[in-house]
Amino acid sequence: MRAYAETARLLVDVAMGRAAADLVVRGARWVNVHSGEVIPATDIAVADGRFAYCGPDATHTIGPRTVVVEARNRYVVPGLCDAHMHVESGMVTVTEFCRAVIPHGTTSMFIDPHEVANVLGLAGVRLMHDEALAQPVNVWTQMPSCVPSAPDLENAGARIGVAEVEEAMRWPGMIGLGEVMNFPGVIANDPVMAGAIAATRHAGKVVGGHYASPNLGRDFHGYVAGGAQDDHEGTRADDAIARVRQGMKAMLRLGSAWYDVAEQIRAVTEQGLDPRNFILCTDDCHSGTLIAEGHMDRVVRHAIRQGLKPVTAIQMATLNTAEHFGLEREIGSITPGRRADFLIVSQLAELRIDEVYGRGVRLAQNGQLTADIPVYAYPDTAMRTVHLGRKLTAQDFELSAPAGKNHVEARVIGVIENQAPTEHLQRRLPVIDGKVPGDPEQDVCRIALVERHRATGDVVNALVSGFGYDVPCAMASTVAHDSHHMIVVGTSADDMAAAANRLGDVGGGVVFFRDGVEAAMVELPVAGLMSTERAEVVAAKVDALLAAMRAAGCKLNNAYMQHSLLALVVIPSLRLSDRGLVDVERFELVDVFA
Amino acid sequence: MRAYAETARLLVDVAMGRAAADLVVRGARWVNVHSGEVIPATDIAVADGRFAYCGPDATHTIGPRTVVVEARNRYVVPGLCDAHMHVESGMVTVTEFCRAVIPHGTTSMFIDPHEVANVLGLAGVRLMHDEALAQPVNVWTQMPSCVPSAPDLENAGARIGVAEVEEAMRWPGMIGLGEVMNFPGVIANDPVMAGAIAATRHAGKVVGGHYASPNLGRDFHGYVAGGAQDDHEGTRADDAIARVRQGMKAMLRLGSAWYDVAEQIRAVTEQGLDPRNFILCTDDCHSGTLIAEGHMDRVVRHAIRQGLKPVTAIQMATLNTAEHFGLEREIGSITPGRRADFLIVSQLAELRIDEVYGRGVRLAQNGQLTADIPVYAYPDTAMRTVHLGRKLTAQDFELSAPAGKNHVEARVIGVIENQAPTEHLQRRLPVIDGKVPGDPEQDVCRIALVERHRATGDVVNALVSGFGYDVPCAMASTVAHDSHHMIVVGTSADDMAAAANRLGDVGGGVVFFRDGVEAAMVELPVAGLMSTERAEVVAAKVDALLAAMRAAGCKLNNAYMQHSLLALVVIPSLRLSDRGLVDVERFELVDVFA
Repeated sequence: MRAYAETARLLVDVAMGRAAADLVVRGARWVNVHSGEVIPATDIAVADGRFAYCGPDATHTIGPRTVVVEARNRYVVPGLCDAHMHVESGMVTVTEFCRAVIPHGTTSMFIDPHEVANVLGLAGVRLMHDEALAQPVNVWTQMPSCVPSAPDLENAGARIGVAEVEEAMRWPGMIGLGEVMNFPGVIANDPVMAGAIAATRHAGKVVGGHYASPNLGRDFHGYVAGGAQDDHEGTRADDAIARVRQGMKAMLRLGSAWYDVAEQIRAVTEQGLDPRNFILCTDDCHSGTLIAEGHMDRVVRHAIRQGLKPVTAIQMATLNTAEHFGLEREIGSITPGRRADFLIVSQLAELRIDEVYGRGVRLAQNGQLTADIPVYAYPDTAMRTVHLGRKLTAQDFELSAPAGKNHVEARVIGVIENQAPTEHLQRRLPVIDGKVPGDPEQDVCRIALVERHRATGDVVNALVSGFGYDVPCAMASTVAHDSHHMIVVGTSADDMAAAANRLGDVGGGVVFFRDGVEAAMVELPVAGLMSTERAEVVAAKVDALLAAMRAAGCKLNNAYMQHSLLALVVIPSLRLSDRGLVDVERFELVDVFA
Repeated sequence: MRAYAETARLLVDVAMGRAAADLVVRGARWVNVHSGEVIPATDIAVADGRFAYCGPDATHTIGPRTVVVEARNRYVVPGLCDAHMHVESGMVTVTEFCRAVIPHGTTSMFIDPHEVANVLGLAGVRLMHDEALAQPVNVWTQMPSCVPSAPDLENAGARIGVAEVEEAMRWPGMIGLGEVMNFPGVIANDPVMAGAIAATRHAGKVVGGHYASPNLGRDFHGYVAGGAQDDHEGTRADDAIARVRQGMKAMLRLGSAWYDVAEQIRAVTEQGLDPRNFILCTDDCHSGTLIAEGHMDRVVRHAIRQGLKPVTAIQMATLNTAEHFGLEREIGSITPGRRADFLIVSQLAELRIDEVYGRGVRLAQNGQLTADIPVYAYPDTAMRTVHLGRKLTAQDFELSAPAGKNHVEARVIGVIENQAPTEHLQRRLPVIDGKVPGDPEQDVCRIALVERHRATGDVVNALVSGFGYDVPCAMASTVAHDSHHMIVVGTSADDMAAAANRLGDVGGGVVFFRDGVEAAMVELPVAGLMSTERAEVVAAKVDALLAAMRAAGCKLNNAYMQHSLLALVVIPSLRLSDRGLVDVERFELVDVFA
């Protein structure tokens, strides 16, 4: 859309009655996030995608071609902003994510394409950035800051250094640095971390934080001095209070698996902290959540239920976000000059959204998208990212025992229900024909990491406990945080090979094989991370996949997520990378056999 | 000072205890403008001019050369910001203004050198900008937007167009566009106004507003659509409410002659509007006010007395200002990364300031400047701006009557006590020897505007009522808003000529002659607007001048200010410009004789 300065004269003409508005909303209750009021009997006039007039009577702005919408005393609310999120978590493209969330009132998003960056590097970030700019709503991009997550313990598909950050900061839709999650690097003045932050600050952009530690002592203060301007990793009210006191914005998240609003919002509702420093976000939403529960509307409703005034909760998803990112003159309120992103809401405390407008155009009504959003065409480089190098066989997924043993003492990755950390287990396991197949009695099966970025053909084998598979089966996924190689977990080497090869054929995704038969698949051909289909289609396929896992004996609550996190070598205790089994407490590679 | 990004690694090292702080303040009550709290028992560590650590214990940051200050439970308060002001109103240089206000706790100023711009144009703005950057406190410059104030009715010393604004926006200390006071131009889409605003927005900087009208109807909405982001011209609570609702910041001013806080702050204290949108400023302070009453400390104290919580009032002079100008990571709070500008305060509600620190250096203690601030050398071009072209004589200050009359009906500028507008009077006056000398019985004397920018030698004569002079005398001033020619008011043509020539000799200022003798003078050699002396010296000279005016019969409350506003051709009703007598209601030149 045109810059404000290009449109300003038209806006003045409309406000003065010398030119006609494109759109007028009449007789609304104006949720004014600046003053904190709800102002009755307000008219709003829009021209060239921006608000031109907000006041008691816009009759003078109505011309023969002006579209007039009667609000009939319903509320007008600024379009909602998601201050930090990963599109990849929805397993859909930016375009499809927008289709899914616009009916829920989201009109601005700040996306951190961290997963794509691990697969495709700077070029992948640029693709997401460019797709973002093609949307009818506002999607700004944050530059992933920590790729790979653990440079000494894994090889990802790409590497982001200071030079890449400097380049990205010049792109038009780049808003700042994505969550700086390498907090040990920050407090140690790691040159890549310090350089990336410096490049962002030199560009006048915002440094996103990610301090995932309960320690509010010296490390926390060192991290703050390093320059992070927000943080969404707090979980306790004290975490939020500490961040706000240090001049950071406390971002409170409610995602598919994050529930960090209720506890932290007590800093406002009980401790009385100034709410201007609090911002709502989702961080990660699965497609199923978007379809069944919503997006930022769900977060705002939840925040209101915690005792916030509706207008205060709405500020945390509109004006506060806009101010934080230096976009206060562009988005976040219904006032002249800003982009005409707004919702018509029939019930405020429950945020019942009747209509959604982006840049003055109606995009959704009664929960249904009404706008036409064209498909975004990804180039071949983004669609062919699963490079296995060769056809894999069952032998590739056998774990050979040390010679001459009939039992082994093995290190086993232990999945913990409802938690991201894993246990570092030790198990005595039988050796059969020189191999260690696992032991259903102890719920131990095999896990393999298949290198998929550089076609090395490498397969690293290890053992995992907790999935409960009790039939011959295997699941493979090219979503494998953060390096996004392929993780295969299974009880059958044949099924493991079949699943891995199948993902190689379709360009990535998640597939479940049982007894040699494909039981479910979610194709994710974009970088091996994202579908090109609608969110509801993806959500249905994910449901089928989870059903297949359950049918094979898996009883985990978040079974697929647990699978996809087993290569996350920055969270304790034991993980698998392309370089081997990683003891994350000691940050070193260890043998499977003790 | 160095940019944050250049200092960040040191700040991290200090926070982590790996490097020593330059300064540590121990055991303070931390006025936290982010959270809105006062937090006891806080230590603060400073390195390289920025806060490195703010928390319960900074012992680990103390090295052998660290200066340790014991707060002994006193408050630490962020340095105060004046969000909009004219240094010229103090009749001193930027340097001397800083000397005067630092002991009052001001550590950041946003100056609009509108008067200098009218005399010296862009080069004069650059001089002020460069002097501003030489200070030990933060002085950002706003680009004057309306020079001359009334292009069709006067010739100023310079002209600012869109090209000048574009150039100035590239200067390092330029923060935005100064008050856009030509509001009829904005709502009419005048190309210079629209162009200046567009240039500012393209540069990502802040557009200052100045909507000096009580009309909150269509004109107001047109002005808002034009892009002004703040406004300090409101006087009623409804003015503040209207501005905030439209997404502007309400700047409330308490200057030497502005009293706009008490009424408007009721929008917060009584109407409950969100205080984040309110900012305090002075706009205009005379040296006498700075010396006798203070600067932003006076404004904050006054705001607290109106019923604001101290921390809320302090937010309005710190964090709110910083956020408005996009400087939230640089100034406005005591938190890591920001410039170490802070006050040690022994009584919060009365804001009793014991010590003032700028960038980690103690600048003042117990109301006395302790820092050494070097004199700033102005170039000759700025020191020689009174160009009379010739020696003036008494004849130049005679007002000739139309031929053959012994009485005339004359238009007379009528000064109104305590108000900026003038009356458009009509008086029957005697003709003596073909001249109209005025009439002491009707309190009418002569006024002359002496062209002083281009050495034309022009003198425009007219009549004024209200000064009460009852002896032979004259006062001349090169401060003559906004074009800053020379205004001479007097009862004696000899004294008028003597006063005018004297100012030509000294390079400008204000001088009072009585019976041929110089009774008082304030030399203002910098652009004819500013002294190079200390504020207390200037204040004493102004006092002597006012005493001389009173001794000659003048009983006006703000006698000198009234004099200096008589050429202000944008405020009704009758004024004098270098082009003649101006009817400001009809925006046209009129004859002295009706």
